[in-house]
Amino acid sequence: MVKENEVPGRLEWRVNMPNGSSRILAPESRETCNRLQSLVMRIFLNIRGFLDKAWNLAINEPKKVVHCLKVGLALSLVSVFYYMRPLYDGVGGNAMWAVMTVVVVFEYTVGSTLYKCVNRAIGTCLAGSLGIGVHWVASQAGDKFEPVILQVSVFLLAAAATFSRFIPTIKARFDYGAMIFILTFSLVSVSGYRVDKLVELAHQRVSTIAIGASICILITMILCPVWAGTEVHHLISNNLEKLADSLEGYAAENFSVDGSKNVHEKDSSKRLQSYKCVLNSKAAEESMANFARWEPAHGKFNFRHPWKQYLKIGASMRSCAYCIETLHGGINSNTETPEFLKKPLNDVCMRLGTSSSKVLKEMSSMIKTMKKSTKLDILVDEMNSSVEGLQNALKIFPSYQHIPTPDPATEEAPTGTEEPSLKPTALSLMEIVHMATLTSLLVEIASRIEGIVEEVKELATQAEFRDESSKKSKQNQTKINGNDGNEHEVTMKTLQKV
Amino acid sequence: MVKENEVPGRLEWRVNMPNGSSRILAPESRETCNRLQSLVMRIFLNIRGFLDKAWNLAINEPKKVVHCLKVGLALSLVSVFYYMRPLYDGVGGNAMWAVMTVVVVFEYTVGSTLYKCVNRAIGTCLAGSLGIGVHWVASQAGDKFEPVILQVSVFLLAAAATFSRFIPTIKARFDYGAMIFILTFSLVSVSGYRVDKLVELAHQRVSTIAIGASICILITMILCPVWAGTEVHHLISNNLEKLADSLEGYAAENFSVDGSKNVHEKDSSKRLQSYKCVLNSKAAEESMANFARWEPAHGKFNFRHPWKQYLKIGASMRSCAYCIETLHGGINSNTETPEFLKKPLNDVCMRLGTSSSKVLKEMSSMIKTMKKSTKLDILVDEMNSSVEGLQNALKIFPSYQHIPTPDPATEEAPTGTEEPSLKPTALSLMEIVHMATLTSLLVEIASRIEGIVEEVKELATQAEFRDESSKKSKQNQTKINGNDGNEHEVTMKTLQKV
Repeated sequence: MVKENEVPGRLEWRVNMPNGSSRILAPESRETCNRLQSLVMRIFLNIRGFLDKAWNLAINEPKKVVHCLKVGLALSLVSVFYYMRPLYDGVGGNAMWAVMTVVVVFEYTVGSTLYKCVNRAIGTCLAGSLGIGVHWVASQAGDKFEPVILQVSVFLLAAAATFSRFIPTIKARFDYGAMIFILTFSLVSVSGYRVDKLVELAHQRVSTIAIGASICILITMILCPVWAGTEVHHLISNNLEKLADSLEGYAAENFSVDGSKNVHEKDSSKRLQSYKCVLNSKAAEESMANFARWEPAHGKFNFRHPWKQYLKIGASMRSCAYCIETLHGGINSNTETPEFLKKPLNDVCMRLGTSSSKVLKEMSSMIKTMKKSTKLDILVDEMNSSVEGLQNALKIFPSYQHIPTPDPATEEAPTGTEEPSLKPTALSLMEIVHMATLTSLLVEIASRIEGIVEEVKELATQAEFRDESSKKSKQNQTKINGNDGNEHEVTMKTLQKV
Repeated sequence: MVKENEVPGRLEWRVNMPNGSSRILAPESRETCNRLQSLVMRIFLNIRGFLDKAWNLAINEPKKVVHCLKVGLALSLVSVFYYMRPLYDGVGGNAMWAVMTVVVVFEYTVGSTLYKCVNRAIGTCLAGSLGIGVHWVASQAGDKFEPVILQVSVFLLAAAATFSRFIPTIKARFDYGAMIFILTFSLVSVSGYRVDKLVELAHQRVSTIAIGASICILITMILCPVWAGTEVHHLISNNLEKLADSLEGYAAENFSVDGSKNVHEKDSSKRLQSYKCVLNSKAAEESMANFARWEPAHGKFNFRHPWKQYLKIGASMRSCAYCIETLHGGINSNTETPEFLKKPLNDVCMRLGTSSSKVLKEMSSMIKTMKKSTKLDILVDEMNSSVEGLQNALKIFPSYQHIPTPDPATEEAPTGTEEPSLKPTALSLMEIVHMATLTSLLVEIASRIEGIVEEVKELATQAEFRDESSKKSKQNQTKINGNDGNEHEVTMKTLQKV
């Protein structure tokens, strides 16, 4: 045992010996102690950091904690088969398979649990019957050929099933099933060589697997179910909002006329970066849309909800995010755009940025509420007219600048009432490049947003989004009275459409 | 049985009855037959398409076929434990666990197989000993409390282990181990309630798992091993080449002066699109770099090869690919750039595109050969001077155009010897936007390529890439004699550096 005693003036290390005496540590041993202490501290800090991380995860995503409790519950339930004699005898000591099924099959979302259950069922039944068949054939062939036939069949079928797992269509839907097929086939056909009551054994195993699987399905679907479909639905709608946020944030940061640039800098930089989530969510979208196909109708989703369409929306969203990334990447320019161009162009750019982000937000809320939006078309029109406005501005603005030339007559005694004469001076391309790039990236982003709009509309058609209710129309009508003429006209148009 | 008999003039369907008579089918039955036939045809075509796909996969990636044969071989080997009486008795009828281990653990790459084996071993041992401990504690508590203690411990540990699988650091390295931990702990602690010789059982299971795992490891490492490390290494180097290809292709398509645009159009469009692989390879890179960490030293890679650095290169490559995507996305412009600007700018753009793609190609070959490149710095310098050239060109070119103004005196009788008088006319911004955007995207791409260069150099340092051999220097020297002065100077500089 090492103890730290503070002696006035200097630090001393003492070791208390078992016989009661104590010894002051020599410098080398002290160094070792220090090192040991720092090691312990480091380990302790690591563990603390890890626990902090875990705690934050638990706080931020309570659903995951609930999932863990569900797994614990399922296992406790299935272990009852061991504790109750009649149940244990009922499955002939094969309760192990039920426990194994629960551990392997219970996943975070309902869809993935169902995927695994169905795959396990199909794989087990197919391989089990095939295994029994092969075993029968082999047993007819005599003692000499039996192992050969069994081994060759295992070799061939295992290789074929493994290969099928590389084929994309099989991989997406039956990867786990193929693995279970190999497992069951090998076990049944090979262990059949030693086990006599093969059919009975197979029957007991299938029934225990069925018990495990049904416990999983019940718990996952009844207790706070996490539907993969709902997850992908929210993911897409949140991502749309994130894109809108970072576009709006960018516009506010770069084109805003007032000095609102530095307000809540931390918040805004986080908002600006939120498009990055979109860049990285491909894998999550794909796996969840894939699992969603296994789920029954739930909430607002039918059994045949067009989950594939979400992937298309995701792809077009990413294509838009690439552009935003380029925009944010800071198109480098050494030369500043001249002020006389900057101000009016900033205005139109700001308008385009805002209208684009409005379109994105409208789509996000459209997906969230699963209602067709009457405002979407208007917002897209607005965005397009902003694009036109920007293009017109570009057409109108000449690439020269009126620079005041000093008039020799008035140079020494400026009267102040006369305006200095202006001479048009051409800008070099360098001075224009930065602004030109920004504008054309914004236009490109707007055109890619139109791509998203098309996919979202397709989703609305395929998933039969409801029309906006008459209640909403009424709300619009009340809005008309309190607003300016322009909005009045636009909303009237919408109402006619409805 | 349905038979098709062609009667001149029209088609008839006849059914031959068992008694020898035949009956002409009524239109409805014929329709049913037609439908059935088309259904069969469709199924047949689907199956054929599927088999075609599988065949193509097998042809294109023979490594995967070899993997399938390896799985078959491993299973055949492990099933020997069933066929040989002494072996079967040796493992006490627990041969099943060996088969199961092989099926579950055998993966495509050596790294992932090792990952699973190590995880399975750690998980099994940890959970097994913990399970036996809990079982002992529970058995001391008396018959009444035993199931309660067991069930509570299963609930708590399963929930905790499941939660740990959500923590990124655990998920990356020990996801499978946590699952095996839950499985083994539940089986051991719960089945201990019914099985008497628990320790003996555990011993037998561990030994069968060890047998299965070692068969897997031996086969995966000896027979045509697929190393995850080599895969990620090639993936990164190929992706660099793909980026170079699509950049070069883009430059050739858009800035080339001669009409080489339409040569091999199909090839070139495929080449142009190759950057898309880079956008989508994040998941593959991450999983492979993760598995590579489990692999022993192999080929040119040490045990502690900096696999994480590959992920950094991948990230900076993707950031460059986003820009290229924006470039390829076709920055939309309704107005063409005026010819007098286009030609000289095309030239500098072409030079920048070519020099950027050369840098990428050099990095690709540097990674491929794992040799430090002396040429890389020169190429980067070249790229930077191209960037400067482009920026200078932009600075020099004014944004006005000399348009010939008809001289009233010479209008009707042009003499041809006199040049028409030119009047400077300012361009509108619109006419410049397209070219300006292209140039600044190219400059941005070049700056992102520099980011890749830094990461690749870091890899070269960390992984201790060899210096280029003296043989290479000699080759350079011969090159000097045959080339222009500029290259001479540059290569001399390099030689001095070496």
